[in-house]
Amino acid sequence: MTPAAPTPAYRRLSVEERRTQLLDAALGLFAHRAPEDVSLDDVAEAAGVSRPLVYRYFPGGKQQLYEAALRSAAEELEQCFDEPRQGPLVARLRRALDRYLAFVHEHDTGFSALLQGGSVVETSRTTAIVDGVRRAAAEHILRHLGVAEPGPRLRMTVRMWITAVEAASLIWLDEDKEPPLDELRDWLVEQFVAVLSVTAGRDPQTATVVRALASADG
Amino acid sequence: MTPAAPTPAYRRLSVEERRTQLLDAALGLFAHRAPEDVSLDDVAEAAGVSRPLVYRYFPGGKQQLYEAALRSAAEELEQCFDEPRQGPLVARLRRALDRYLAFVHEHDTGFSALLQGGSVVETSRTTAIVDGVRRAAAEHILRHLGVAEPGPRLRMTVRMWITAVEAASLIWLDEDKEPPLDELRDWLVEQFVAVLSVTAGRDPQTATVVRALASADG
Repeated sequence: MTPAAPTPAYRRLSVEERRTQLLDAALGLFAHRAPEDVSLDDVAEAAGVSRPLVYRYFPGGKQQLYEAALRSAAEELEQCFDEPRQGPLVARLRRALDRYLAFVHEHDTGFSALLQGGSVVETSRTTAIVDGVRRAAAEHILRHLGVAEPGPRLRMTVRMWITAVEAASLIWLDEDKEPPLDELRDWLVEQFVAVLSVTAGRDPQTATVVRALASADG
Repeated sequence: MTPAAPTPAYRRLSVEERRTQLLDAALGLFAHRAPEDVSLDDVAEAAGVSRPLVYRYFPGGKQQLYEAALRSAAEELEQCFDEPRQGPLVARLRRALDRYLAFVHEHDTGFSALLQGGSVVETSRTTAIVDGVRRAAAEHILRHLGVAEPGPRLRMTVRMWITAVEAASLIWLDEDKEPPLDELRDWLVEQFVAVLSVTAGRDPQTATVVRALASADG
């Protein structure tokens, strides 16, 4: 028997692993620079790989890189609101917000840059990706509320709250992450319950949801 | 004495009047078409003027036309929240929202198009114009709340509500203007009082504002 060949120090990454590595490097750069100021060369340098390799993965240039990074962030964000349907509703919402705010905290100004795009990178496609995250978050929340066919008032309330949460995260980053993360999370949850309660006064379906919220968590 | 010359049937418009006429025509077109699909020729036809005249006013082409229309809409929107500081606060807020929602109703899909831009027209300049309207609305509201130096929690609450109102108007246009305008207005006012009350539990400054609201309007 011949001895096994020693494992090479440099392991070849799979296509998917390499792609993830490059997108991680790009997201790191977006955290400190506007998307239009991040070149493929910068990504090569940050990832410690050759420039031709980066160009092979993103032949469409920085626009393609930005869209891929946005799509990858969007997938991660959508997973934040994918929470098992167990236990009190308010506790589930807090866990989802914890994950979401951890993402905002981790990606910092890269989060703002991704959401707001920039002069070079904004297209109807990137707007659609961001809208897709908002829509997915709304769907997740409506499912948790246990409503099979949410009416317009309940849907509008949930979508307004999601927009408000997004605005809060951007303001929070602008304001040097004040208030502390835990307080921000609880504050947002309280706001959700408050606006749902307002809608409950105008919409019997939402009133049922608010009663369920109170009985399960009270 | 010679008799006065008869007034010509065709009155020459001043530069400002002509500009306003052309922007009104453009806003009308944006109500039915994406900004990138509105050409200067379309504006000339809609306004019943010659094409060279429109090109003289907007030598920068459709990007300049769009920005001018956005700026003109922004000025009108900012005025919505410019309300005399008299009478109960809630009544003032209702009047401001009445004006704002009338603007949304009148400009219809043109309002969405202006706010959301499009693939051709979105630039950091147009984003700055829209952000300027949000900031002006927040300033107006904070002044009405009678707070000289609003702290971060109160400011964040007001800015979140403004974003939620903006989201509500876009959803409202999408949902064939349901619920009716008066209901939407009252619902938005109630939400504002509700989120302020939530913040009051965490912030003494906001608690003072909420007490003043209750005593003046209760």
